[in-house]
Amino acid sequence: MEVAIIMGSDSDWPRLEAAWELLRGFGIEVGVRILSAHRSPEDCVRFVQQAEGAGVQVFIAAAGLAAHLPGVVAAHTQRPVIGLPLAAGPLQGQDALYSVVQMPPGVPVATVGIDNARNAALLAAEILALGDRRLADKLKAYRQDLRRQVLARDGQLQEELEARA
Amino acid sequence: MEVAIIMGSDSDWPRLEAAWELLRGFGIEVGVRILSAHRSPEDCVRFVQQAEGAGVQVFIAAAGLAAHLPGVVAAHTQRPVIGLPLAAGPLQGQDALYSVVQMPPGVPVATVGIDNARNAALLAAEILALGDRRLADKLKAYRQDLRRQVLARDGQLQEELEARA
Amino acid sequence: MEVAIIMGSDSDWPRLEAAWELLRGFGIEVGVRILSAHRSPEDCVRFVQQAEGAGVQVFIAAAGLAAHLPGVVAAHTQRPVIGLPLAAGPLQGQDALYSVVQMPPGVPVATVGIDNARNAALLAAEILALGDRRLADKLKAYRQDLRRQVLARDGQLQEELEARA
Amino acid sequence: MEVAIIMGSDSDWPRLEAAWELLRGFGIEVGVRILSAHRSPEDCVRFVQQAEGAGVQVFIAAAGLAAHLPGVVAAHTQRPVIGLPLAAGPLQGQDALYSVVQMPPGVPVATVGIDNARNAALLAAEILALGDRRLADKLKAYRQDLRRQVLARDGQLQEELEARA
Amino acid sequence: MEVAIIMGSDSDWPRLEAAWELLRGFGIEVGVRILSAHRSPEDCVRFVQQAEGAGVQVFIAAAGLAAHLPGVVAAHTQRPVIGLPLAAGPLQGQDALYSVVQMPPGVPVATVGIDNARNAALLAAEILALGDRRLADKLKAYRQDLRRQVLARDGQLQEELEARA
Amino acid sequence: MEVAIIMGSDSDWPRLEAAWELLRGFGIEVGVRILSAHRSPEDCVRFVQQAEGAGVQVFIAAAGLAAHLPGVVAAHTQRPVIGLPLAAGPLQGQDALYSVVQMPPGVPVATVGIDNARNAALLAAEILALGDRRLADKLKAYRQDLRRQVLARDGQLQEELEARA
Amino acid sequence: MEVAIIMGSDSDWPRLEAAWELLRGFGIEVGVRILSAHRSPEDCVRFVQQAEGAGVQVFIAAAGLAAHLPGVVAAHTQRPVIGLPLAAGPLQGQDALYSVVQMPPGVPVATVGIDNARNAALLAAEILALGDRRLADKLKAYRQDLRRQVLARDGQLQEELEARA
Amino acid sequence: MEVAIIMGSDSDWPRLEAAWELLRGFGIEVGVRILSAHRSPEDCVRFVQQAEGAGVQVFIAAAGLAAHLPGVVAAHTQRPVIGLPLAAGPLQGQDALYSVVQMPPGVPVATVGIDNARNAALLAAEILALGDRRLADKLKAYRQDLRRQVLARDGQLQEELEARA
Repeated sequence: MEVAIIMGSDSDWPRLEAAWELLRGFGIEVGVRILSAHRSPEDCVRFVQQAEGAGVQVFIAAAGLAAHLPGVVAAHTQRPVIGLPLAAGPLQGQDALYSVVQMPPGVPVATVGIDNARNAALLAAEILALGDRRLADKLKAYRQDLRRQVLARDGQLQEELEARA
Repeated sequence: MEVAIIMGSDSDWPRLEAAWELLRGFGIEVGVRILSAHRSPEDCVRFVQQAEGAGVQVFIAAAGLAAHLPGVVAAHTQRPVIGLPLAAGPLQGQDALYSVVQMPPGVPVATVGIDNARNAALLAAEILALGDRRLADKLKAYRQDLRRQVLARDGQLQEELEARA
Repeated sequence: MEVAIIMGSDSDWPRLEAAWELLRGFGIEVGVRILSAHRSPEDCVRFVQQAEGAGVQVFIAAAGLAAHLPGVVAAHTQRPVIGLPLAAGPLQGQDALYSVVQMPPGVPVATVGIDNARNAALLAAEILALGDRRLADKLKAYRQDLRRQVLARDGQLQEELEARA
Repeated sequence: MEVAIIMGSDSDWPRLEAAWELLRGFGIEVGVRILSAHRSPEDCVRFVQQAEGAGVQVFIAAAGLAAHLPGVVAAHTQRPVIGLPLAAGPLQGQDALYSVVQMPPGVPVATVGIDNARNAALLAAEILALGDRRLADKLKAYRQDLRRQVLARDGQLQEELEARA
Repeated sequence: MEVAIIMGSDSDWPRLEAAWELLRGFGIEVGVRILSAHRSPEDCVRFVQQAEGAGVQVFIAAAGLAAHLPGVVAAHTQRPVIGLPLAAGPLQGQDALYSVVQMPPGVPVATVGIDNARNAALLAAEILALGDRRLADKLKAYRQDLRRQVLARDGQLQEELEARA
Repeated sequence: MEVAIIMGSDSDWPRLEAAWELLRGFGIEVGVRILSAHRSPEDCVRFVQQAEGAGVQVFIAAAGLAAHLPGVVAAHTQRPVIGLPLAAGPLQGQDALYSVVQMPPGVPVATVGIDNARNAALLAAEILALGDRRLADKLKAYRQDLRRQVLARDGQLQEELEARA
Repeated sequence: MEVAIIMGSDSDWPRLEAAWELLRGFGIEVGVRILSAHRSPEDCVRFVQQAEGAGVQVFIAAAGLAAHLPGVVAAHTQRPVIGLPLAAGPLQGQDALYSVVQMPPGVPVATVGIDNARNAALLAAEILALGDRRLADKLKAYRQDLRRQVLARDGQLQEELEARA
Repeated sequence: MEVAIIMGSDSDWPRLEAAWELLRGFGIEVGVRILSAHRSPEDCVRFVQQAEGAGVQVFIAAAGLAAHLPGVVAAHTQRPVIGLPLAAGPLQGQDALYSVVQMPPGVPVATVGIDNARNAALLAAEILALGDRRLADKLKAYRQDLRRQVLARDGQLQEELEARA
């Protein structure tokens, strides 16, 4: 496993599935675990320590509310930890964003946007691509695809607007 | 030790000292520890587990920024944990407040106001007073004192205003 | 009655019912009252004073908007008061959170997360468990159940992902 | 006494003095009391009830943090209550503003801007002026003065800028 | 007309109707006008000036977004102006609240809670009741009704809970 | 093309269509392009530079989340750039508003309200009207129409209320 | 006068002076007026109407708190109005930003960043430059200067760092 | 150069110097550049493209206000980009945080806490350490040092408190 995706609750899975699929699409070995910083803290720490030994290079940790999971993971590893704040409850992810990004000096968490699982996966891939030229090429192709989609939609819109003119 | 005050950094001590003195003034045995959820997580967990064994009834955990300490303590004990968010950095404690109070269902933290160490101490005393009638009486006296101070200041103001009339 | 749950309006009951059931499930005597800090202030104060006399150990007070109820209860008792801010109206509980947690020094309210009735109940149980070993054991079992649920869901997810691999 | 100014702490007095002076300048009988919704709740309620009997027409209640005082006053009178949120502590009056203005339907508080004691006084005067033509004339003169000051400063600025041209 | 309700758009009417009905129920003469601070500013100012002459005692001005209407009304009258911020658009009334309540010193607006038309009406009634004993009695009865409703619902809940016990 | 409307994604088009129609209704030549500051940055810059050469007078750039598009456009032209923050994702446009309006000194973006495409178009028209008297007359007529609509709706409401009286 | 700078209070002048100097540096005729939307509303409206007649092309209106001035100006002209929110009081300009930018559909205000007088001036210049090629050239030179300063400071830093290496 | 630190203004340097020193202390080749996304956009893009060719593995981009720099860098490279929001101006870094972290899906920025230059440097080091065992060992030692400091300060506090007992 090169990337470990950790979340505190199975209700988060639908929002994380995109990250899992994206990483697999890049040919990256990725595992997913449900582990809670508060309800199963020892299982969580044990997994992080064992995962580092087993070759995990990057962790993605997702959580909502007082989202401590990314910070707890980062406290037990020095592999890069990507924190993904989730919008849950009435504060709509503002609570999770602050809980993830405002880590004290000394223990960083690489935070991406609220509910933005796709960017968590891409950031993990960018990190791995530093040591993997083939992955770097795939990322380049992915970015070119993004550009092509923008151009294609622009083209469609131009046609549509001309038709209306 | 009946109450354990935990903070992540010695720079928090000046804001916590009032809690320590208040609890001691009530005759409560209170210890203070510097333990970090992120920089010394294992020491922190070990202390919580050992403290529970050694008779600690209530924990007070104070932290700023992405304030995970109270939640991490609460994940390892079922004694009441009082969370004290501290105003540190540009978000002025809003980050700490969310990180402390918005705990997921299942693992509560009893949160008091930002930088309000006095209320953390009083809440701890109120909890202990449920099983300690003498402490309950001291709390009652303390509250009566608060009232007397309000009345005294009101009296002074009335004199002052009359003098100016 | 060991725990009194107070709310300002019967429209809050569906969000509080979980707290009532959880406490009853632990074998705790719990009463529920509709009392408003603003529309029936004297009934509210009278209830608090009489309840303390009748043995109530912990109050849970829930309110939305300018949520004064927990503070008003705390002004008339020195039993621990747990404040539960509710998300009502367009500010989504941010108003209630500030109104509950930012109490002035001298009169604490133990605040839990917005709409988090379950944590209000668990905090009340943790406080009572300090003087009730059997309740403490039930809480331990409850926490172990939480952990087991996390592990079970993780197990299911692993199977699901393997099936898709 | 026609207007009663109430505050929870004598530390608020310097910010309220302007209101007191403004009202006295209009020839309005005004009293000032230190009374706390949380530390001397019964004195506070007693004062409100007795004040209404003694002819107080309008209440001004000022508070910071979880600012319950205006709401508590409003719960015990149906005279207009003007709420003045004060900036105290790290949330800078945002907490007080929400606690004052977001009253539940049925019990209004007339809220003015954070720390804006002058507007609290003027609003009280506007209310009293409905039944007092002489006061209405004074208010008109006050407003004309405001306008004259604006014009005067504009005149000074024009001279200054011309001198620099 | 004793009370004039002003709003910037007819889409606000459904939220204001409650205020109109409440005031009429108290026997207060109330008019409603659609007038925009930005789209019909001169009509708006003309109405305010003429209304004051025609005996309007209190203005209620409601607006969403950059809610200038209450302030613009207040700039042209010294009758009390009640500002009612409305939740419109993605900022959910936070923008309207700030635009209404944070008036500069000299020109107050009596602000009530977001979307809280009922409190705007009650505040207007409280102001008028200072010079109208019969109205004062009706307000007292209204408040007693509120209390009776709370008690009645509490009674129902007790029965319901007993039935479930 | 006098006005160029740029957006980062075709999903924004439904919210922008009103601007396009409004500008066309004024007889202004307007083009619409999908160009992303992050996914097709070079196409975006190239378009801006070429558009300025081709006579575009005003740019309207719309974006949500970390809305960099208006700022990136402004970095490559000195024609006025109107920034339109869009409400997308859980922060409801607050993120986009800050990302658009808080430009560093030296490179301004003329920001309009969140999702307020109509005002973006009107601002563009106001700017063009400085050099086009006929357009200025159309804008005047448009504003008079707005006023007439307010008056008409007020008239309808008066009839409705009279019918109910 | 091509550009009119309006502010509600002379205390705002030190923050606006930079805009005045920048515009004069570009050779633009600029006037400055103190006029209040709330304390001198009729003078304010009269000035706007007369200024438009006298050839003012662009208005810059600055205000803090419930900053209505830009909107009030925009309600009386269809020349472009640039709104400059100022940080005043405890909400630090957040109130002013919302009050300026969230204008209702139909009456736009071109908002720049909080306290960013320089960008208000540059935006006015960009608008005027559409009809004034010489001004457009000056703006281009200004932007090139900005770039040169960045490069120069980068050069200095490189030397400094080399000296320390 | 393995790590490139980019900032928009030399006034940010004092806050970034700690990152530069930390990285140099780890023996990492690090360069610092002043390049602005808005004032020197082409220099900025050129640097990013050339830097990637010259072997830069990780970018750290720091900015305040509408902080576009990290996003602009990320749009032109697929090396990991660490975004460091800076507290500048009255919104105290909240604007910068949103502008940096809320990137659209497809182009991630690894965001660290406001003004937390130390964590930006540590995150860069963690990423590089994946391919550099010696650096990984230095990071481990650094973390152990952090822990030792916590323990030492705890020890000092215990002595201090004992002396006071």
